[in-house]
Amino acid sequence: MAAILIENNYGKQAVRLVTVRRFPDRHELKDVTVGIRFEGDFAAAYTDGDNGGVLPTDTMKNTVYALAAGHPFDDIEDFGLLLTDHFLTHNPRASRVQVDLAEHPWEPIETCRTAFYQPGGERRTAQVTRDREGVKVVSGLENLVVMKTAKSAFEGFPRDRYTMLPETSDRLLATAVRATWRYSRPDVAFGLWHQVRRVLLESFAEHDSRSVQHTLHAMGEAVVRTLDVEEIHLSMPNRHHIPVDLRPFGLENRNEIFVATPEPYGLIEGTVRRG
Amino acid sequence: MAAILIENNYGKQAVRLVTVRRFPDRHELKDVTVGIRFEGDFAAAYTDGDNGGVLPTDTMKNTVYALAAGHPFDDIEDFGLLLTDHFLTHNPRASRVQVDLAEHPWEPIETCRTAFYQPGGERRTAQVTRDREGVKVVSGLENLVVMKTAKSAFEGFPRDRYTMLPETSDRLLATAVRATWRYSRPDVAFGLWHQVRRVLLESFAEHDSRSVQHTLHAMGEAVVRTLDVEEIHLSMPNRHHIPVDLRPFGLENRNEIFVATPEPYGLIEGTVRRG
Amino acid sequence: MAAILIENNYGKQAVRLVTVRRFPDRHELKDVTVGIRFEGDFAAAYTDGDNGGVLPTDTMKNTVYALAAGHPFDDIEDFGLLLTDHFLTHNPRASRVQVDLAEHPWEPIETCRTAFYQPGGERRTAQVTRDREGVKVVSGLENLVVMKTAKSAFEGFPRDRYTMLPETSDRLLATAVRATWRYSRPDVAFGLWHQVRRVLLESFAEHDSRSVQHTLHAMGEAVVRTLDVEEIHLSMPNRHHIPVDLRPFGLENRNEIFVATPEPYGLIEGTVRRG
Amino acid sequence: MAAILIENNYGKQAVRLVTVRRFPDRHELKDVTVGIRFEGDFAAAYTDGDNGGVLPTDTMKNTVYALAAGHPFDDIEDFGLLLTDHFLTHNPRASRVQVDLAEHPWEPIETCRTAFYQPGGERRTAQVTRDREGVKVVSGLENLVVMKTAKSAFEGFPRDRYTMLPETSDRLLATAVRATWRYSRPDVAFGLWHQVRRVLLESFAEHDSRSVQHTLHAMGEAVVRTLDVEEIHLSMPNRHHIPVDLRPFGLENRNEIFVATPEPYGLIEGTVRRG
Repeated sequence: MAAILIENNYGKQAVRLVTVRRFPDRHELKDVTVGIRFEGDFAAAYTDGDNGGVLPTDTMKNTVYALAAGHPFDDIEDFGLLLTDHFLTHNPRASRVQVDLAEHPWEPIETCRTAFYQPGGERRTAQVTRDREGVKVVSGLENLVVMKTAKSAFEGFPRDRYTMLPETSDRLLATAVRATWRYSRPDVAFGLWHQVRRVLLESFAEHDSRSVQHTLHAMGEAVVRTLDVEEIHLSMPNRHHIPVDLRPFGLENRNEIFVATPEPYGLIEGTVRRG
Repeated sequence: MAAILIENNYGKQAVRLVTVRRFPDRHELKDVTVGIRFEGDFAAAYTDGDNGGVLPTDTMKNTVYALAAGHPFDDIEDFGLLLTDHFLTHNPRASRVQVDLAEHPWEPIETCRTAFYQPGGERRTAQVTRDREGVKVVSGLENLVVMKTAKSAFEGFPRDRYTMLPETSDRLLATAVRATWRYSRPDVAFGLWHQVRRVLLESFAEHDSRSVQHTLHAMGEAVVRTLDVEEIHLSMPNRHHIPVDLRPFGLENRNEIFVATPEPYGLIEGTVRRG
Repeated sequence: MAAILIENNYGKQAVRLVTVRRFPDRHELKDVTVGIRFEGDFAAAYTDGDNGGVLPTDTMKNTVYALAAGHPFDDIEDFGLLLTDHFLTHNPRASRVQVDLAEHPWEPIETCRTAFYQPGGERRTAQVTRDREGVKVVSGLENLVVMKTAKSAFEGFPRDRYTMLPETSDRLLATAVRATWRYSRPDVAFGLWHQVRRVLLESFAEHDSRSVQHTLHAMGEAVVRTLDVEEIHLSMPNRHHIPVDLRPFGLENRNEIFVATPEPYGLIEGTVRRG
Repeated sequence: MAAILIENNYGKQAVRLVTVRRFPDRHELKDVTVGIRFEGDFAAAYTDGDNGGVLPTDTMKNTVYALAAGHPFDDIEDFGLLLTDHFLTHNPRASRVQVDLAEHPWEPIETCRTAFYQPGGERRTAQVTRDREGVKVVSGLENLVVMKTAKSAFEGFPRDRYTMLPETSDRLLATAVRATWRYSRPDVAFGLWHQVRRVLLESFAEHDSRSVQHTLHAMGEAVVRTLDVEEIHLSMPNRHHIPVDLRPFGLENRNEIFVATPEPYGLIEGTVRRG
């Protein structure tokens, strides 16, 4: 029985693009996941292993970053129009190109114009533990996702034979804060939670960060100094956003084009108490 | 070699509690996940299968709903204090009770006081498909989570031998809207997306719903009637919130205490076009 | 601008069905997720809120359990054929019914014919902690999913005003074991892991269980008694499988038809050490 | 109110390591996720932003790959012992190092010694659609996770200005197969599913692959040629495993050390029908 290939398509999915546009008075942050799908005259790749017309999906991914560098956009539809036009123009074997885009929302933190938070999945938490002696209340929050696009560096660290990381004086710093704390007054009104959350956001936004550790401490310090909180524990995964090297494509990346990476991630923790 | 049980605990996790407080001018919505953990004199259950002191975890779950009925709360800490007090008072074998609570945020929709949306995981989407003939743009959104606590009924449906569902003139209606649409003008500014989202929210909030189907159509109709949209497809899973039967506990549920259920769920879809 | 409904469908998704067929020498376990979708003459429900022809999706769910009771099947295709035939025959407004089925695999545990494990997501784990004093190794496994369809009871527990749970001498017991242990000899070959896993499976399968606690202890005891293990911690969520009440449909459930529920779930933990 | 840092730790989580040991008669595949956590004299990093003692978590990650290259292991405990020893010896400020390892299981495919499948989450699927004219049955499977460690190349593809991908004659090929098919005989016994699955596994294992497309077609062709299947659709995400460049560390990677990347991923699809 013979076999016939009656339909085929291929492409790249889950290309993670983060861009920062830097204006004098503010930054603009875009966070988009892109998928690309080609249809056309590609049957020989399937039936004969002939790759002569198969643009690598890795190239599709690179194209997303390269075109993003030269074409800032407000609406994802416009970037999709650009990508499909590019791919169809430069790939004569493709008869149809589909681009799927999903934009993940970020909101500015208060009046700071270079720090953002992402609504989504944030939870208020509490743990109440009681035994025959008494009761303990721990308040908290989880998954408060934030990002700084300015005032974040990581320099001066030790190097050994396995160290490849370059020093940077201006990187993105993104994390999903998990915090738990105990109040310093037994009669506290638990609605104080809203103020703790606000101080965490503001201190994150304003801090001149030398590391995640440094910012974690500044956030904890701000809380115990200004509010009725005895002790706060902070757990902050470092969600790395890596600048894309555009030089092989003849382009410069002025710290504007990043790939968001889900793993591996740093994990930084610490507990700050009133002294 | 003998074996010694050196530590043990048990309890119920992931108890999903949704409450509605109904005031003349507005509703208040709480959405909380509760976990309960007992430690104490329970070794005989492990070593000998003696259940004499083991309060069923199903009873722990029922207690959450029963206590919620009589004790509305603003802060989850207060509900945790109540629960631990109840469990420790009524279970002499328990030496320590831990209650973990996580509150999921909901925000009112505009000026409507009986409809809510949940920030979290919402995405703006676009699909651009281009071939040698032309290009097609489909705009959309995913995971716009909304709930109505008034103006939602489901009555008059057919019954067969397998129908157990009671008719209801006042139920919760919750869904996670996925919508895709095409604009009616080729030169549209894609930022019109924000108005489509607003009309979807407002029409959901204001509609006097006889079913998910009924509300889906009203939302689609509102969009194509008031904005430059040619056609919109809506997919709306029915996230069932089931009133808890409190009568066995000698309590009345005045349509205030619900269990949120993840599965199964209804799925309602439809496409509305300009006529 | 008028609006026209140009396409619609509705139904029930994520109906979780577990069946046990009880033969003298063995049990057969089926675990299936079912989705149902109706198309047809349902436009009035959307446009006018007329529910006269809208079979509730809750009824669709009940039908899955009721038909499963009378029609044991080997291949999910056969059950899909039965369901679509039933729905199309009894719902004149439906012009097209689609049923999606996904079967989750279970394998018998060794020679025991009434206990099963589910390949999928199981992980071998290790934690090595070293300080200037020395090193500690903890071996383990996660997500070892198992189910007993015989020799599991839960009776004799205390009842309070919130207790509704019936006593049962023959229930399903399903869990996802997480275990961590320390070996009793410093020079152990870590490949002993495979024997610990085997003893956990066998003792789970063979135990005459009066509760999850009871079986947890039997499993821990078997490990420390028969292998070079000093101490083992076990964490076992109780994944409840609830018999469906078929009496309203004129059917008897001979402990064969269950709904698998993801939440809430019991969580039972304990640590067993050599004595 | 002063603030005191009372506890801290940091490290790298979710380091994805895949290794292949190549013996004349077989390959051995290891798939491990590693997490690393340092405690010690790191307070100045938090309080003063002094990074002088903070080994970058990126270096921790590199160390995992570099040490794996020189130290093949059977048991993850042994690799954890090696890592903690290395980190504690070379980082005088660290007082305690914890390494968490989770191994993901792979099994050889039949008698082939260079192809593997991963139990976990595989599902058998069916879709039955019936209207007043007749019925259509589509059988299938989802999430059949497989990997080839030999006989997989990708060469001869076109290059444009954005192409960076090197050609390779010996790469890892991993995917999670989703397949749907229709049988060619109306009276087929649906248990034939097991043979379709077997032919998919065997043809994947034995194929001399020039691309995912090429192997997809070979799998589909094997099914329609040897079994009563009329048409099969295959969807195969390309789960990229990228060789780690060890040259900066003075080491050679003889195609043995890989990082498993979750995103982006290629997606290759096609439908093969009897001709």
